[in-house]
Amino acid sequence: MASDSRVLNSALRSRIMSAEEAAALIPSGVNVGMSGFTGAGYPKQVPAALAKRIMDSNLNGKKFKIGVWTGASTAPELDGALAMVDGVEMRLPYQSDPICRKRINAGEMEYIDIHLSHVAQSVWFGFLGKLDWAVIEVAGITEEGHLIPASSIGNNKTWLDCADKVILEVNSWQHPALEGMHDIYYGTQLPPHRKPIPLVRPDDRIGEPYLKVDPSKIVAIVETDLKDRNSAFTPPDQASKQIAGHILEFFEHEVRKGRLPRELLPLQSGVGNIANAVMNGLNEGPFDNLTAYTEVLQDGMLDMLRSGKLTSASSTALSLSPAALAELYTNIDDYRRRIVLRPQEISNHPELIRRLGVLAMNGMIEADIYGNVNSTHVMGTQIMNGIGGSGDFARNAYISIFMTPSTAKGGDISCIVPMVSHTDHTEHDVQVIVTEQGLADLRGLSPKQRAKVVIENCAHPDFKPVLKDYYRRANSYAAGRHTPHLLEEALSWHLRYLRSGKMPRDTADELSERVGGATSPLARAPQ
Amino acid sequence: MASDSRVLNSALRSRIMSAEEAAALIPSGVNVGMSGFTGAGYPKQVPAALAKRIMDSNLNGKKFKIGVWTGASTAPELDGALAMVDGVEMRLPYQSDPICRKRINAGEMEYIDIHLSHVAQSVWFGFLGKLDWAVIEVAGITEEGHLIPASSIGNNKTWLDCADKVILEVNSWQHPALEGMHDIYYGTQLPPHRKPIPLVRPDDRIGEPYLKVDPSKIVAIVETDLKDRNSAFTPPDQASKQIAGHILEFFEHEVRKGRLPRELLPLQSGVGNIANAVMNGLNEGPFDNLTAYTEVLQDGMLDMLRSGKLTSASSTALSLSPAALAELYTNIDDYRRRIVLRPQEISNHPELIRRLGVLAMNGMIEADIYGNVNSTHVMGTQIMNGIGGSGDFARNAYISIFMTPSTAKGGDISCIVPMVSHTDHTEHDVQVIVTEQGLADLRGLSPKQRAKVVIENCAHPDFKPVLKDYYRRANSYAAGRHTPHLLEEALSWHLRYLRSGKMPRDTADELSERVGGATSPLARAPQ
Repeated sequence: MASDSRVLNSALRSRIMSAEEAAALIPSGVNVGMSGFTGAGYPKQVPAALAKRIMDSNLNGKKFKIGVWTGASTAPELDGALAMVDGVEMRLPYQSDPICRKRINAGEMEYIDIHLSHVAQSVWFGFLGKLDWAVIEVAGITEEGHLIPASSIGNNKTWLDCADKVILEVNSWQHPALEGMHDIYYGTQLPPHRKPIPLVRPDDRIGEPYLKVDPSKIVAIVETDLKDRNSAFTPPDQASKQIAGHILEFFEHEVRKGRLPRELLPLQSGVGNIANAVMNGLNEGPFDNLTAYTEVLQDGMLDMLRSGKLTSASSTALSLSPAALAELYTNIDDYRRRIVLRPQEISNHPELIRRLGVLAMNGMIEADIYGNVNSTHVMGTQIMNGIGGSGDFARNAYISIFMTPSTAKGGDISCIVPMVSHTDHTEHDVQVIVTEQGLADLRGLSPKQRAKVVIENCAHPDFKPVLKDYYRRANSYAAGRHTPHLLEEALSWHLRYLRSGKMPRDTADELSERVGGATSPLARAPQ
Repeated sequence: MASDSRVLNSALRSRIMSAEEAAALIPSGVNVGMSGFTGAGYPKQVPAALAKRIMDSNLNGKKFKIGVWTGASTAPELDGALAMVDGVEMRLPYQSDPICRKRINAGEMEYIDIHLSHVAQSVWFGFLGKLDWAVIEVAGITEEGHLIPASSIGNNKTWLDCADKVILEVNSWQHPALEGMHDIYYGTQLPPHRKPIPLVRPDDRIGEPYLKVDPSKIVAIVETDLKDRNSAFTPPDQASKQIAGHILEFFEHEVRKGRLPRELLPLQSGVGNIANAVMNGLNEGPFDNLTAYTEVLQDGMLDMLRSGKLTSASSTALSLSPAALAELYTNIDDYRRRIVLRPQEISNHPELIRRLGVLAMNGMIEADIYGNVNSTHVMGTQIMNGIGGSGDFARNAYISIFMTPSTAKGGDISCIVPMVSHTDHTEHDVQVIVTEQGLADLRGLSPKQRAKVVIENCAHPDFKPVLKDYYRRANSYAAGRHTPHLLEEALSWHLRYLRSGKMPRDTADELSERVGGATSPLARAPQ
């Protein structure tokens, strides 16, 4: 043990071993809860060591697979390594790893895409089977045996509570000054014993700064010194800046109308470059004294904390570029007071999101003209990443906003389509759709009224005429005119893309696809 | 004024007038919040009087329309009358009236189908426009001017608070002994001022027994003596009994596995005959000391209260047959202690449904093999009724169950389809699907695993081979194998029904529909 060990509890020091020794303890067939949320705070050595062992086992003809449960996405050292050796029987609740994605879409790996707020309780309820092992990265172990959480919390509390055996990775790359930033709520119960969660402001602290674990469950401690794999954000492109501009204009309009206070309401922002661009926009915008209640804190929010635009931020993970992380640690004493990291069941809790009145801003793959949103499936069958927390926030938000550029793949795909090829957020849960073209405010509109504003405000000019033509014909010939569709054409845009690599750009394109002339063969006269 | 008037407040007596006089006060173009939830507690004279006035106006060439906002469904005297004369510009949040439905599906009436828990707050937020008028049925007015609610509460608190002008129908048919059964929570706030709702047991009383209204807003009081239009339930048919049997068996299994307590968790049950049959089943089942936290109390639950199986029930409406209503009033002193009627924002509140761990049981139109549920649209375009509270409960339930007979229209429609034609509850929110054929427990299953159990356990034998054939080919030829679909066929069952009046019953039927041979023309070899 190095003299600078972060394992301060003397009884636990005897359990320090190598990653290979620790990985050798995990048998095939078990479910393993691992730390990690958006590339932060995942174990960095044991999963890869386990992957090597799985590879050896598989090469020797002995099938070795485990269930891998996490907070959300991790990194190549975890998801990539285990997927590469075909070591994952069942993955949940969210992933974004290219090798995982390939295996899932090839039908070689099972994957359950779960609302992030539902995971911990589902495990407590026993709905997902037994959690056998936990592999958790922490920033240190105190003399008393408490665990100092790392750069994410995710489901770590639940994994530590529910697993029979625990392996800890104590990562000295994680800054010791993180201590005190976390707020682990230990008041959750199973029904019928649940009580109100006593949080009324985004920055309320309702728990404890440490994770607890029964020391008799700890079978191995691995000391590491390896960084989170967060990369820099790309500078906002033109489309992202335009999307951000539309959202800011919308917020200003809502403030003028008296539907939002001047300091807005707690912001939630999804993962990725567009979300980051919106934060950049807000940082240069007219609003002050903002707060955030979100699941992941990216560079954009840190900039807002630094500038003072944001007074505080609550999340379950820090997903920061190396430069932003340097800034965080330079001024950690200030940030530690203003950032609260919580378990994801609290950061994403429906009770709290509704109470706080969160402004939810999430990316999507596509929306349809009636306001249904697909966040997960490319062309209806291939998983991209997963629903993440978008449903937790959108369903319970004060206003739920979904955003995407109006086209993808160099303009060959329209992200506004007649009917989404998979639905993650229904017409009942989507209030605002934004593309670089503009913003469609769907509140108080019937499906047909929505179709008009979605096409007019959000569709790319290349696809507008074909969308209008579809809507016009659907509204004339559909069996029902509440949500008019021509079912034989509703998914034809996706089919056309699968066949030709392009969605239909003009009505002639679209007409040439159809059998039976200018109107549907199933067309019905109005009844 | 009759000597038995229920208008005890002397200052308000001067505002008593006829329904025609009251209806004459309401101008065209306003939004009117009306009472009424599942055929209970709706105003019974003013809407019809208004409809006659609208008819006269329209016949004279002066267009007269209003926005009609309610709790949920009402009755012919309200929805039917106003729709008949084309007097409704916008209807929300739920309806089940045949004339309304016809107008909506003909494209003649706008309709917004909203989660019932979202309505009140959306009005407070100003998202649906200004609420101008309220027309509310009550059981009486006390000397102090408090309103004794009738057989439903719905959104009445919000309508009374937000409207500029109020018309009350004081219905002496509503039993005076209802006084004291209601619990109106006046603690809601707008964000950022919201506090936890202090309810931890289904029968907790957290509010007041009366509705309050600023007396200066009351412009008319109409005295009526007319019954709610609730009809008797049909005796449970074979399919309903089988569905109930599968659910009971499932609950027993969950209790044995330790995933449900012996007294289960609070029951929520949707509207209609199947839901009622499940309650009948529970009434004869092995579970005691049950509770209910639901939006509507039907005969089945009253039977359970009478037998003692159910210790208490919370809802927002009494939707009872005449016989059940007679029983209620015969033993009202007992029932008044055990039944709590609440505003629908509380009966359906996500915070409370999640906290209590409700067992949600709701009907549906169709489910697909991957566990997506359509509750609202026939063949994707025609509204049936609306989502009601099914989403409020399903999303936040301990276990969310959706049920339907496996076929409809005498066996011509399969209620298990390759892809739902409209999605109201996504794969992320549906845990159990039940038909008379059996029960599919989808918890912890990936999409492909779900497809197998849904087809095997729930599909009708007539449609099983075609569903298996679809799934087999989708899993071989789809672009992605996470949720395998053949997009050109995914909605072909609905199309076939629209064309021929039958969904495909065997693979030959289905093959004859397809162009391009035995596999999809877009079929791709595995990559």
